[in-house]
Amino acid sequence: MLNIQPLVSHCNKFCNIEPEKLSLLEPFFEYRTYKKKEMLLREGQRCNEKFFIVRGCIHLYYLRQDGIEQTIDFAIENWWTSDFMAFQHNSAAQFSIRALETTEVLCITADNQQQLLTEMPELNAYFHLIFQKAYAAAQMRFRMLYELSKEELYLDFRRNFPAFLQRVPQYMLASFLGFTPEYLSEIRKKFIS
Amino acid sequence: MLNIQPLVSHCNKFCNIEPEKLSLLEPFFEYRTYKKKEMLLREGQRCNEKFFIVRGCIHLYYLRQDGIEQTIDFAIENWWTSDFMAFQHNSAAQFSIRALETTEVLCITADNQQQLLTEMPELNAYFHLIFQKAYAAAQMRFRMLYELSKEELYLDFRRNFPAFLQRVPQYMLASFLGFTPEYLSEIRKKFIS
Repeated sequence: MLNIQPLVSHCNKFCNIEPEKLSLLEPFFEYRTYKKKEMLLREGQRCNEKFFIVRGCIHLYYLRQDGIEQTIDFAIENWWTSDFMAFQHNSAAQFSIRALETTEVLCITADNQQQLLTEMPELNAYFHLIFQKAYAAAQMRFRMLYELSKEELYLDFRRNFPAFLQRVPQYMLASFLGFTPEYLSEIRKKFIS
Repeated sequence: MLNIQPLVSHCNKFCNIEPEKLSLLEPFFEYRTYKKKEMLLREGQRCNEKFFIVRGCIHLYYLRQDGIEQTIDFAIENWWTSDFMAFQHNSAAQFSIRALETTEVLCITADNQQQLLTEMPELNAYFHLIFQKAYAAAQMRFRMLYELSKEELYLDFRRNFPAFLQRVPQYMLASFLGFTPEYLSEIRKKFIS
Protein backbone atom coordinates (compact mmCIF):
# COMPACT_ATOMS: atom_id res chain seq x y z
CA MET A 1 0.00 0.00 0.00
CA LEU A 2 1.45 3.28 -1.20
CA ASN A 3 1.64 6.06 1.34
CA ILE A 4 1.08 9.23 -0.63
CA GLN A 5 0.17 11.30 2.44
CA PRO A 6 3.47 13.22 2.86
CA LEU A 7 3.22 14.48 -0.72
CA VAL A 8 -0.45 15.37 -0.29
CA SER A 9 0.41 17.39 2.84
CA HIS A 10 3.17 19.17 0.95
CA CYS A 11 0.83 19.99 -1.97
CA ASN A 12 -1.70 21.41 0.46
CA LYS A 13 0.85 23.85 1.82
CA PHE A 14 1.17 25.46 -1.59
CA CYS A 15 -2.18 25.16 -3.31
CA ASN A 16 -5.79 24.26 -2.87
CA ILE A 17 -6.68 20.98 -4.47
CA GLU A 18 -9.79 19.16 -3.38
CA PRO A 19 -8.82 16.42 -0.90
CA GLU A 20 -10.68 13.71 -2.82
CA LYS A 21 -8.73 14.63 -5.97
CA LEU A 22 -5.38 14.30 -4.23
CA SER A 23 -6.05 10.64 -3.54
CA LEU A 24 -5.97 10.14 -7.32
CA LEU A 25 -2.24 10.88 -7.27
CA GLU A 26 -1.35 7.45 -6.03
CA PRO A 27 -1.35 5.41 -9.29
CA PHE A 28 1.20 7.76 -10.86
CA PHE A 29 3.87 7.19 -8.22
CA GLU A 30 6.12 4.37 -7.15
CA TYR A 31 7.15 4.11 -3.51
CA ARG A 32 10.78 3.07 -3.14
CA THR A 33 13.18 2.58 -0.30
CA TYR A 34 16.90 3.02 -0.83
CA LYS A 35 19.46 1.73 1.63
CA LYS A 36 22.23 4.00 2.84
CA LYS A 37 24.72 4.50 -0.05
CA GLU A 38 22.34 3.10 -2.65
CA MET A 39 22.09 5.07 -5.92
CA LEU A 40 18.88 6.82 -7.02
CA LEU A 41 20.48 8.03 -10.25
CA ARG A 42 23.84 7.50 -11.96
CA GLU A 43 25.70 10.01 -14.11
CA GLY A 44 25.46 8.91 -17.76
CA GLN A 45 22.24 6.96 -17.23
CA ARG A 46 19.08 8.24 -18.93
CA CYS A 47 17.14 10.27 -16.40
CA ASN A 48 13.37 10.06 -16.68
CA GLU A 49 12.40 10.17 -13.01
CA LYS A 50 12.12 12.70 -10.26
CA PHE A 51 11.92 11.98 -6.57
CA PHE A 52 9.94 13.41 -3.67
CA ILE A 53 11.76 12.57 -0.45
CA VAL A 54 9.39 11.17 2.18
CA ARG A 55 12.12 10.25 4.65
CA GLY A 56 15.88 10.36 4.43
CA CYS A 57 18.68 12.41 2.95
CA ILE A 58 20.49 12.35 -0.41
CA HIS A 59 23.37 14.12 -2.07
CA LEU A 60 23.62 15.09 -5.71
CA TYR A 61 27.15 15.07 -7.14
CA TYR A 62 29.29 14.60 -10.21
CA LEU A 63 32.59 12.81 -10.66
CA ARG A 64 35.50 15.17 -11.17
CA GLN A 65 38.27 14.46 -13.69
CA ASP A 66 40.49 13.43 -10.78
CA GLY A 67 37.93 10.83 -9.66
CA ILE A 68 36.74 12.76 -6.61
CA GLU A 69 33.00 13.18 -6.04
CA GLN A 70 31.96 16.83 -6.03
CA THR A 71 28.73 17.38 -4.08
CA ILE A 72 26.49 20.04 -5.60
CA ASP A 73 23.46 19.67 -3.37
CA PHE A 74 21.79 17.90 -0.48
CA ALA A 75 18.09 17.21 -0.01
CA ILE A 76 15.92 15.96 2.85
CA GLU A 77 12.23 15.38 3.59
CA ASN A 78 9.73 17.30 1.42
CA TRP A 79 12.27 18.23 -1.23
CA TRP A 80 12.14 17.17 -4.84
CA THR A 81 15.37 16.00 -6.43
CA SER A 82 16.58 14.97 -9.87
CA ASP A 83 18.90 16.08 -12.63
CA PHE A 84 16.23 18.43 -13.93
CA MET A 85 17.97 19.26 -17.22
CA ALA A 86 18.16 15.54 -18.04
CA PHE A 87 14.62 14.96 -16.72
CA GLN A 88 13.27 17.70 -18.94
CA HIS A 89 15.01 16.37 -22.07
CA ASN A 90 14.84 12.68 -21.17
CA SER A 91 18.60 12.61 -21.69
CA ALA A 92 21.72 11.26 -19.97
CA ALA A 93 22.19 12.49 -16.40
CA GLN A 94 25.16 14.73 -15.67
CA PHE A 95 24.76 14.13 -11.95
CA SER A 96 24.48 11.14 -9.65
CA ILE A 97 22.19 10.95 -6.63
CA ARG A 98 22.98 8.72 -3.63
CA ALA A 99 21.14 8.02 -0.38
CA LEU A 100 23.10 9.18 2.68
CA GLU A 101 20.78 7.27 5.02
CA THR A 102 17.84 4.92 4.53
CA THR A 103 15.70 6.98 2.19
CA GLU A 104 12.07 6.58 1.16
CA VAL A 105 10.89 8.38 -1.94
CA LEU A 106 7.86 8.81 -4.11
CA CYS A 107 9.15 8.48 -7.64
CA ILE A 108 7.38 9.68 -10.77
CA THR A 109 8.50 9.17 -14.38
CA ALA A 110 8.33 11.97 -16.95
CA ASP A 111 5.62 10.08 -18.86
CA ASN A 112 3.55 9.57 -15.73
CA GLN A 113 3.96 13.21 -14.79
CA GLN A 114 2.71 14.30 -18.18
CA GLN A 115 -0.30 12.03 -17.81
CA LEU A 116 -0.92 13.22 -14.25
CA LEU A 117 -0.77 16.88 -15.26
CA THR A 118 -3.23 16.21 -18.07
CA GLU A 119 -5.67 14.65 -15.61
CA MET A 120 -4.98 17.08 -12.76
CA PRO A 121 -3.70 20.30 -14.38
CA GLU A 122 -4.17 22.14 -11.06
CA LEU A 123 -0.99 20.43 -9.84
CA ASN A 124 0.95 22.77 -12.13
CA ALA A 125 0.28 25.49 -9.56
CA TYR A 126 2.13 23.38 -6.97
CA PHE A 127 5.09 22.74 -9.27
CA HIS A 128 5.18 26.39 -10.34
CA LEU A 129 5.54 27.49 -6.72
CA ILE A 130 8.08 24.90 -5.65
CA PHE A 131 10.30 25.51 -8.69
CA GLN A 132 10.02 29.28 -8.19
CA LYS A 133 11.14 28.70 -4.60
CA ALA A 134 14.01 26.47 -5.68
CA TYR A 135 15.13 28.99 -8.29
CA ALA A 136 14.88 31.85 -5.79
CA ALA A 137 17.11 29.87 -3.42
CA ALA A 138 19.57 29.31 -6.27
CA GLN A 139 19.75 33.09 -6.90
CA MET A 140 20.61 33.59 -3.23
CA ARG A 141 23.16 30.79 -3.31
CA PHE A 142 24.95 32.37 -6.29
CA ARG A 143 25.12 35.58 -4.27
CA MET A 144 26.57 33.73 -1.27
CA LEU A 145 29.19 32.03 -3.46
CA TYR A 146 30.39 35.42 -4.72
CA GLU A 147 30.03 37.27 -1.45
CA LEU A 148 31.11 35.08 1.44
CA SER A 149 34.52 33.93 2.59
CA LYS A 150 34.94 30.19 3.18
CA GLU A 151 34.48 30.66 6.91
CA GLU A 152 31.31 32.68 6.34
CA LEU A 153 29.97 30.03 3.95
CA TYR A 154 30.27 27.46 6.72
CA LEU A 155 28.60 29.72 9.29
CA ASP A 156 25.82 30.56 6.85
CA PHE A 157 25.22 26.86 6.16
CA ARG A 158 25.20 26.11 9.89
CA ARG A 159 22.68 28.90 10.51
CA ASN A 160 20.34 28.11 7.62
CA PHE A 161 20.54 24.33 7.46
CA PRO A 162 21.16 23.06 10.99
CA ALA A 163 19.27 19.81 10.22
CA PHE A 164 21.91 18.87 7.64
CA LEU A 165 24.89 19.26 9.97
CA GLN A 166 23.97 16.10 11.86
CA ARG A 167 23.05 14.07 8.81
CA VAL A 168 25.76 14.79 6.29
CA PRO A 169 29.31 13.36 6.52
CA GLN A 170 31.88 16.06 7.21
CA TYR A 171 34.03 15.36 4.15
CA MET A 172 30.93 15.74 1.96
CA LEU A 173 29.95 19.02 3.58
CA ALA A 174 33.54 20.18 2.98
CA SER A 175 33.20 19.21 -0.71
CA PHE A 176 29.88 21.07 -0.99
CA LEU A 177 31.39 24.21 0.54
CA GLY A 178 34.45 23.95 -1.69
CA PHE A 179 36.85 23.17 1.21
CA THR A 180 39.30 20.42 1.97
CA PRO A 181 38.10 18.24 4.88
CA GLU A 182 41.12 19.49 6.89
CA TYR A 183 40.10 23.11 6.43
CA LEU A 184 36.52 22.38 7.52
CA SER A 185 37.85 20.59 10.57
CA GLU A 186 39.91 23.67 11.52
CA ILE A 187 36.92 26.00 11.15
CA ARG A 188 34.70 23.71 13.19
CA LYS A 189 37.25 23.59 16.02
CA LYS A 190 37.42 27.37 16.00
CA PHE A 191 33.66 27.76 16.40
CA ILE A 192 33.17 24.93 18.88
CA SER A 193 35.84 26.24 21.22
CA MET B 1 -1.86 49.76 -27.05
CA LEU B 2 -0.11 46.97 -25.18
CA ASN B 3 1.78 44.52 -27.32
CA ILE B 4 1.41 41.21 -25.53
CA GLN B 5 2.33 39.14 -28.60
CA PRO B 6 5.95 38.25 -27.63
CA LEU B 7 4.72 36.79 -24.34
CA VAL B 8 1.90 34.93 -26.09
CA SER B 9 4.39 33.41 -28.53
CA HIS B 10 6.62 32.36 -25.63
CA CYS B 11 3.68 30.76 -23.79
CA ASN B 12 2.76 28.84 -26.92
CA LYS B 13 6.20 27.29 -27.08
CA PHE B 14 5.61 25.63 -23.72
CA CYS B 15 1.92 24.89 -23.42
CA ASN B 16 -1.34 24.76 -25.26
CA ILE B 17 -3.64 27.57 -24.30
CA GLU B 18 -6.46 28.52 -26.61
CA PRO B 19 -5.41 31.58 -28.67
CA GLU B 20 -8.54 33.54 -27.75
CA LYS B 21 -7.77 33.02 -24.06
CA LEU B 22 -4.25 34.36 -24.40
CA SER B 23 -5.57 37.73 -25.50
CA LEU B 24 -7.09 38.02 -22.00
CA LEU B 25 -3.58 38.34 -20.59
CA GLU B 26 -3.27 41.96 -21.57
CA PRO B 27 -5.05 43.73 -18.68
CA PHE B 28 -2.76 42.09 -16.14
CA PHE B 29 0.43 43.52 -17.57
CA GLU B 30 2.02 46.91 -17.86
CA TYR B 31 4.24 47.67 -20.83
CA ARG B 32 7.31 49.69 -19.85
CA THR B 33 10.37 50.99 -21.60
CA TYR B 34 13.57 51.58 -19.67
CA LYS B 35 16.42 53.66 -21.04
CA LYS B 36 19.95 52.32 -20.96
CA LYS B 37 21.20 52.36 -17.33
CA GLU B 38 17.69 52.88 -15.90
CA MET B 39 16.79 50.73 -12.88
CA LEU B 40 14.02 48.10 -12.99
CA LEU B 41 14.55 47.20 -9.33
CA ARG B 42 16.69 48.55 -6.50
CA GLU B 43 18.23 46.55 -3.67
CA GLY B 44 16.32 47.32 -0.46
CA GLN B 45 13.14 48.32 -2.27
CA ARG B 46 10.05 46.12 -1.85
CA CYS B 47 9.87 43.78 -4.79
CA ASN B 48 6.38 42.93 -5.99
CA GLU B 49 6.95 42.76 -9.73
CA LYS B 50 8.44 40.41 -12.24
CA PHE B 51 9.48 41.26 -15.77
CA PHE B 52 9.23 39.51 -19.11
CA ILE B 53 11.83 41.01 -21.45
CA VAL B 54 10.34 41.84 -24.84
CA ARG B 55 13.43 43.62 -26.13
CA GLY B 56 16.70 44.55 -24.49
CA CYS B 57 19.17 43.27 -21.96
CA ILE B 58 19.48 43.62 -18.18
CA HIS B 59 21.89 42.63 -15.45
CA LEU B 60 20.99 41.55 -11.94
CA TYR B 61 23.55 42.49 -9.28
CA TYR B 62 24.15 43.35 -5.66
CA LEU B 63 26.39 45.94 -4.07
CA ARG B 64 29.41 44.44 -2.37
CA GLN B 65 30.72 45.74 0.95
CA ASP B 66 33.50 47.52 -0.93
CA GLY B 67 30.94 49.37 -3.08
CA ILE B 68 31.57 47.35 -6.24
CA GLU B 69 28.61 45.97 -8.17
CA GLN B 70 28.72 42.18 -8.37
CA THR B 71 26.75 40.88 -11.36
CA ILE B 72 24.93 37.62 -10.67
CA ASP B 73 23.00 37.24 -13.90
CA PHE B 74 22.14 38.65 -17.30
CA ALA B 75 18.86 38.32 -19.18
CA ILE B 76 17.69 39.10 -22.72
CA GLU B 77 14.55 38.67 -24.83
CA ASN B 78 12.06 36.01 -23.68
CA TRP B 79 13.55 35.67 -20.20
CA TRP B 80 11.77 36.44 -16.98
CA THR B 81 13.69 38.36 -14.36
CA SER B 82 13.16 39.49 -10.78
CA ASP B 83 14.48 38.92 -7.29
CA PHE B 84 12.27 35.85 -6.98
CA MET B 85 12.79 35.35 -3.24
CA ALA B 86 11.62 38.92 -2.60
CA PHE B 87 8.83 38.58 -5.21
CA GLN B 88 7.57 35.45 -3.52
CA HIS B 89 7.55 37.02 -0.05
CA ASN B 90 6.71 40.55 -1.15
CA SER B 91 9.80 41.65 0.75
CA ALA B 92 12.83 43.90 0.28
CA ALA B 93 14.95 43.05 -2.74
CA GLN B 94 18.47 41.77 -2.17
CA PHE B 95 19.36 42.44 -5.80
CA SER B 96 19.17 45.35 -8.19
CA ILE B 97 18.23 45.09 -11.86
CA ARG B 98 19.44 47.60 -14.44
CA ALA B 99 18.86 47.95 -18.19
CA LEU B 100 22.07 47.56 -20.21
CA GLU B 101 20.40 48.88 -23.35
CA THR B 102 16.96 50.30 -24.15
CA THR B 103 14.76 47.59 -22.67
CA GLU B 104 11.05 46.92 -23.14
CA VAL B 105 9.33 44.68 -20.63
CA LEU B 106 5.95 43.31 -19.75
CA CYS B 107 5.67 43.78 -16.02
CA ILE B 108 3.24 41.96 -13.74
CA THR B 109 2.71 42.55 -10.02
CA ALA B 110 2.36 39.67 -7.57
CA ASP B 111 -1.29 40.62 -6.95
CA ASN B 112 -2.06 40.71 -10.65
CA GLN B 113 -0.33 37.40 -11.16
CA GLN B 114 -2.43 35.81 -8.44
CA GLN B 115 -5.56 37.16 -10.07
CA LEU B 116 -4.42 36.06 -13.53
CA LEU B 117 -3.67 32.54 -12.33
CA THR B 118 -7.09 32.34 -10.71
CA GLU B 119 -8.73 33.30 -13.99
CA MET B 120 -6.38 31.33 -16.24
CA PRO B 121 -4.98 28.50 -14.09
CA GLU B 122 -3.61 26.79 -17.22
CA LEU B 123 -0.81 29.39 -17.22
CA ASN B 124 0.67 27.55 -14.23
CA ALA B 125 1.82 24.89 -16.71
CA TYR B 126 3.85 27.57 -18.49
CA PHE B 127 5.40 28.89 -15.29
CA HIS B 128 6.07 25.34 -14.06
CA LEU B 129 8.09 24.59 -17.21
CA ILE B 130 10.03 27.84 -17.37
CA PHE B 131 11.00 27.69 -13.69
CA GLN B 132 11.97 24.04 -14.04
CA LYS B 133 14.16 25.09 -16.96
CA ALA B 134 15.67 27.98 -14.99
CA TYR B 135 16.36 25.73 -12.00
CA ALA B 136 17.88 23.05 -14.27
CA ALA B 137 20.20 25.70 -15.72
CA ALA B 138 21.14 26.76 -12.17
CA GLN B 139 22.10 23.15 -11.30
CA MET B 140 24.39 23.11 -14.34
CA ARG B 141 25.84 26.51 -13.45
CA PHE B 142 26.72 25.31 -9.94
CA ARG B 143 28.53 22.39 -11.55
CA MET B 144 30.44 24.74 -13.89
CA LEU B 145 31.44 26.98 -10.97
CA TYR B 146 32.97 23.99 -9.15
CA GLU B 147 34.39 22.28 -12.21
CA LEU B 148 35.84 24.83 -14.59
CA SER B 149 38.97 26.94 -14.42
CA LYS B 150 38.53 30.67 -15.04
CA GLU B 151 39.66 30.29 -18.63
CA GLU B 152 37.20 27.44 -19.19
CA LEU B 153 34.37 29.49 -17.63
CA TYR B 154 34.98 32.20 -20.22
CA LEU B 155 35.10 29.70 -23.10
CA ASP B 156 31.96 28.00 -21.84
CA PHE B 157 30.14 31.35 -21.64
CA ARG B 158 31.32 32.27 -25.15
CA ARG B 159 30.11 28.93 -26.51
CA ASN B 160 26.73 28.88 -24.76
CA PHE B 161 25.80 32.57 -24.75
CA PRO B 162 27.34 34.15 -27.86
CA ALA B 163 24.50 36.69 -28.04
CA PHE B 164 25.60 38.19 -24.72
CA LEU B 165 29.22 38.76 -25.71
CA GLN B 166 28.27 41.66 -27.97
CA ARG B 167 25.73 43.19 -25.62
CA VAL B 168 27.35 43.11 -22.22
CA PRO B 169 30.18 45.46 -21.15
CA GLN B 170 33.45 43.61 -20.68
CA TYR B 171 33.99 44.72 -17.07
CA MET B 172 30.54 43.38 -16.20
CA LEU B 173 31.18 40.04 -17.87
CA ALA B 174 34.44 39.88 -15.91
CA SER B 175 32.48 40.51 -12.70
CA PHE B 176 29.95 37.81 -13.59
CA LEU B 177 32.73 35.29 -14.26
CA GLY B 178 34.51 36.25 -11.05
CA PHE B 179 37.52 37.83 -12.85
CA THR B 180 39.21 41.17 -12.78
CA PRO B 181 38.67 43.09 -16.05
CA GLU B 182 42.44 42.83 -16.70
CA TYR B 183 42.34 39.06 -16.45
CA LEU B 184 39.40 38.82 -18.86
CA SER B 185 41.24 41.08 -21.28
CA GLU B 186 44.25 38.74 -21.20
CA ILE B 187 42.12 35.67 -21.85
CA ARG B 188 40.30 37.37 -24.72
CA LYS B 189 43.58 38.35 -26.37
CA LYS B 190 44.77 34.79 -26.09
CA PHE B 191 41.70 33.39 -27.86
CA ILE B 192 41.39 36.11 -30.46
CA SER B 193 44.99 35.71 -31.60
